[in-house]
Amino acid sequence: MATLRFGQHVIKASAVFLQTELSFALVNRKPVVPGHVLVCPLRPVERFRDLLPEEVADLFSTTQRVAALVETHFNATSLTIAIQDGPEAGQTVKHVHVHVLPRKAGDFQRNDSVYDELQKHDREDEDVHSKWRTEEEMAAEASDLSRQLH
Amino acid sequence: MATLRFGQHVIKASAVFLQTELSFALVNRKPVVPGHVLVCPLRPVERFRDLLPEEVADLFSTTQRVAALVETHFNATSLTIAIQDGPEAGQTVKHVHVHVLPRKAGDFQRNDSVYDELQKHDREDEDVHSKWRTEEEMAAEASDLSRQLH
Repeated sequence: MATLRFGQHVIKASAVFLQTELSFALVNRKPVVPGHVLVCPLRPVERFRDLLPEEVADLFSTTQRVAALVETHFNATSLTIAIQDGPEAGQTVKHVHVHVLPRKAGDFQRNDSVYDELQKHDREDEDVHSKWRTEEEMAAEASDLSRQLH
Repeated sequence: MATLRFGQHVIKASAVFLQTELSFALVNRKPVVPGHVLVCPLRPVERFRDLLPEEVADLFSTTQRVAALVETHFNATSLTIAIQDGPEAGQTVKHVHVHVLPRKAGDFQRNDSVYDELQKHDREDEDVHSKWRTEEEMAAEASDLSRQLH
């Protein structure tokens, strides 16, 4: 596995910490909170309705596994789990993806600001290279997470 | 089916428009947008991690079916799908539930305000009877939706 397709993007294998039969999970170049990761179907379909039953089952069993992992690993106490399904919901990457965010008390001044940040996260015009984490930093996090799954 | 348990609440059968082997879907007494509905496991567990594999699969295949239905029925073009999993993520009803919100262009002045409303939606102190829809209104909507599924 050298790269994986994520909508219009190509994801380096080093950012992927879990691959199942039909899904994969990757760390984020611009996490909204520490441990903010994405879970996607391997097949690059745009909308949630396009997923086959076996893809839905695999995507959410993977999400459940990933959610438990990042909640523990990042010392959180709750999780925000969200799909922005379609452009009017803030989706820009045309590939179904589940946002998983470990949450803890006081992580945002207003509890719901997490969602403002989540919407901004996906916007192309806010997506400037200078704000991205380094490939090395992402690879190290993915490797840490992966180790705990195997 | 006279009533169903939803965390600390008891839901009238008239508000439930779909029941599967392991899940159910209900209309909302205070929808954030028209067609804002909830999908829940029948078993009243608090956290997403508590669901068994077959419950996860059923919950999200039901969510997929319900999402397609409300997007069409409410003439929307996108969907926001979210779980507030744990108190630090805004969960107050101690029973896993997936929020499904049909979205359309211009439904909120700021696209991400939907999430502010979603957080407020679950708060007990904002949950005053005077803001609820009538039981009749909810039953009529549930009946409309149910008819399209059968």
